[in-house]
Formats: sequence, C-alpha cells, structure tokens
Amino acid sequence: MNFNLKEAFEILERTPQTLESFLTGLSDNWLECNEGEETWNPAQVVDHLIECEKSNWLPRIRTIVEKTENKVFPPFDRHSHITRPSNTSITQKVDEFKRLRGQNIEKVKELIQSDAQFDLTGEHPAFGEVKLRELLSTWVVHDLTHISQIVRVMSERYREDVGPWEEYLGVLKS
Amino acid sequence: MNFNLKEAFEILERTPQTLESFLTGLSDNWLECNEGEETWNPAQVVDHLIECEKSNWLPRIRTIVEKTENKVFPPFDRHSHITRPSNTSITQKVDEFKRLRGQNIEKVKELIQSDAQFDLTGEHPAFGEVKLRELLSTWVVHDLTHISQIVRVMSERYREDVGPWEEYLGVLKS
Repeated sequence: MNFNLKEAFEILERTPQTLESFLTGLSDNWLECNEGEETWNPAQVVDHLIECEKSNWLPRIRTIVEKTENKVFPPFDRHSHITRPSNTSITQKVDEFKRLRGQNIEKVKELIQSDAQFDLTGEHPAFGEVKLRELLSTWVVHDLTHISQIVRVMSERYREDVGPWEEYLGVLKS
Repeated sequence: MNFNLKEAFEILERTPQTLESFLTGLSDNWLECNEGEETWNPAQVVDHLIECEKSNWLPRIRTIVEKTENKVFPPFDRHSHITRPSNTSITQKVDEFKRLRGQNIEKVKELIQSDAQFDLTGEHPAFGEVKLRELLSTWVVHDLTHISQIVRVMSERYREDVGPWEEYLGVLKS
C-alpha cells in the first residue's frame, strides 16, 4: 500500500491548476471533441469533476468520519453534466472546480486529525463496506483517470492525421 | 482529417505549463515511481520530451522544409534519458522543456509560411516517406501520449489502495 495523506493532497491540490494550464484558451474544436455518441468531451469532464466536488467526495468523507450508524453514502448522479448541462465557459468551469476543490481540501484537513481514521468505513451502494483510506485514494486516482480521459479524447481527433505514427503512439491504443 | 496549425500550436504551447502545474513540487515518491523494470518514471518522461525538442521535432521539420534531396531524418535516440541520465530537479527539467519548446515553436512559425508546405515529405527510418502534416500532428499527439503515460504511471501507485474502486477507474485498465 502506498497511500499517505500528504502525498494524496499533493495531487488533489494540483489537478485544478493542471486543467487550467491545459484547457483554458483552447479552441472549441478541442474542448468539444468526443469519442462518439454518449461520450464526454473535455469541458463535460470538468463539469463532472465539479459535480463530484459538490456531491460525492466531501459528503462521503463526512458520512464515514461523522456518522456512527446508517453510514450509507448519499446519492450521486454521475450523469448530471449530461442531464443538467451548464453553459459556462471553460475558464468559469475550471475556476469553479478550483474554488470547490480548495474548500474541500480545507474541510478534509479539519475532519481528519489522526491516521486511525483511515480505517473508518462507510457503505457504498455497489461495493458495500469501504474504508476512508480507499475513498481518499480513489479521489486521487479519479482525478488522474479524468486527466487521462481528456488527453485520450483529444488525441483521438488526430488519429488519422498522424499517418503511420499511429503505431508508435500509446495513447491511441488505450 | 482535423489537423490545423493554429490548433496544433495551442496544444504544443500548453504542454510545458501543464507539466509545470502537474509535476513541480511533487514528492519523489510520485516523480520516481514507475511501472516496473525498464519503464519510465514521470521525471524521465520529461527528460525524453527535452531530448525530442533538441534532436527530433525541429531537425525533422527542417529536413522536410529545407532540403530538396537526401531527406532522411537525422538519427534520434529515444533512450538517451536512460543511457545518459540527467541529475536536474523536476523544476529545472520543466524549465528547460519550456524554454526549448518556446524556441522551437518560434522557429517553426518562421519555417512554415504556407499550407502548401504540409504536403512536403521526409524519409522516416522505419516508415519511409512521411508528410510534414503527419509529423506536426504526431508532435501534438506525442505530447498527449506522454501526459497520458505520466498519469498512468502515477495511478499505478494507488492500484491496491483504491480497494474495490479499481473496477470503476479507467486509467487502471489502460
């Protein structure tokens, strides 16, 4: 096992600024490209990250840390950015994500006072009992998964354009 | 086909600042993790990107644009960061990458004056004749491939820590 809270925060703190550097100012052709019907474009991925800051990570962490019974996680809609799309610019999206992430990190720093809390559990709708350590690790890898998704979606645009190099470019195989 | 030079530069210009936001200040546990023997860690990936700025993209573009005969690409060692490792910090690496990328973009802007040049060709050691359009598109997707690689390598560190969520995290499947 490799998780430790300090290193986890290093990633969580950097994701908004990474997406800011990577996405703001890009043409709509990059921000609105996807991998076909019912797939997400880079801007929608940021909407999803915002929704997770609002309705997933902190409510779940609170459930684990603050509750002693009925520790079922509150509901989370992973398709809310499709069913309730926002019309904000990419700059506004990234700014909102950055603001919410900053607030959530501060709250988690207040909530977690001891390593012993990492073994506290909550009730996941599909997996059953999960540990705080697993939830926090997942928060980190969830950021990385969605950075990876954005990069993959954008690469797809140039699949034909790279000609024979397609063979050498790993991201076109993932 | 989706390539256009303005949009390609949008990505090429952003990669150094994206890596700066993502990597500088991280613990060595993140910067030096890899996927096992003979795989690259995030810092080595930046070394490789630096070497490509020095010995791959611009020399190849020059060969295509400036030469009229003997258009074989100059040799490139994609393992030079392994055989000749550098001892620079991640901040120094990212700064060097940023400086070289900025210079190269300026030079390419001088070299390419007309869309007609995109059909000019050079001789790739494995593929044979390749077009400037394909090389420039590859430069973009090569950046994206290596961002994707860094994210995948870092995710791997937490594969066990995420517990049952492994099933939901796409980056752990790529």
